Amino acid sequence: MKTTKIIFLSILLSVVWSGIKAQEECNEMFFSKTVTGNFESVTEKVIAEFKNVGFGVITEIDMDQALKEKLDNVQMKPYKILGVCNPGFAYKSLQAESNIGVFLPCKVIVKQLDENKVEVVSSNPAMLMKMMKNDELDKLAKEVAKKMKTAIEEI
Amino acid sequence: MKTTKIIFLSILLSVVWSGIKAQEECNEMFFSKTVTGNFESVTEKVIAEFKNVGFGVITEIDMDQALKEKLDNVQMKPYKILGVCNPGFAYKSLQAESNIGVFLPCKVIVKQLDENKVEVVSSNPAMLMKMMKNDELDKLAKEVAKKMKTAIEEI
Repeated sequence: MKTTKIIFLSILLSVVWSGIKAQEECNEMFFSKTVTGNFESVTEKVIAEFKNVGFGVITEIDMDQALKEKLDNVQMKPYKILGVCNPGFAYKSLQAESNIGVFLPCKVIVKQLDENKVEVVSSNPAMLMKMMKNDELDKLAKEVAKKMKTAIEEI
Repeated sequence: MKTTKIIFLSILLSVVWSGIKAQEECNEMFFSKTVTGNFESVTEKVIAEFKNVGFGVITEIDMDQALKEKLDNVQMKPYKILGVCNPGFAYKSLQAESNIGVFLPCKVIVKQLDENKVEVVSSNPAMLMKMMKNDELDKLAKEVAKKMKTAIEEI
């Protein structure tokens, strides 16, 4: 009898815990990780980890360079904006909402913080898609968010 | 006395009206316009109108082509995603919030609807930036939104 109670309580706790974790995943605005290494090698690792979860880089902007070219007195450390895309998810999202292209591709930034310290940040599509109030999009965005979070954690 | 009352009422009404309009501007998720013309000439007009309000195109994705190359059985009319950027606003936004790069550049999509009918849609940065709960960003996003809305209206 006592063992049954413990098992029941354990199951209950793990359900509650996974619920809290899932909630957290949806409420974060960004996924991020700060790593040690030089900017170029971290960028390569980012591209590789996103490839591992099915996302290819389709746009690349060196924001620090672009702004230095256009504006005077710009002080900026290396800051790269990568547009990453999983074709299957992109197509499904477009079928669920034809305007979703204004949020595509998903973005990952690679920011130099200090010498040998680089931060990688992505948006959280699950949080972003809440605004659209579309159940199908919500479902897709949660799957994409999970993959993006995994890629960031693996860097 | 009567004239004073009329002037007072007119001012009051115009203040209320501009308040309602400003509110509307912030609550729209997208700015859009459907125009008659072929896809290429509408795209050129979009690029020109955004240039007129200070935004240059820094990324361009032919989503229909990209998805047709990667996936089987894709049925998609021309669908272009343009990344537009105003360097001054981009720099100010990055200073207000270093992670804002995950939302840059702003996006404008050009979608073929029917033969000779094309829809242009942009995100509304004022709506998007509400999520960030940052007053400085809110202010900047409202200015950017105004310019983007103007560009779309002029197409």
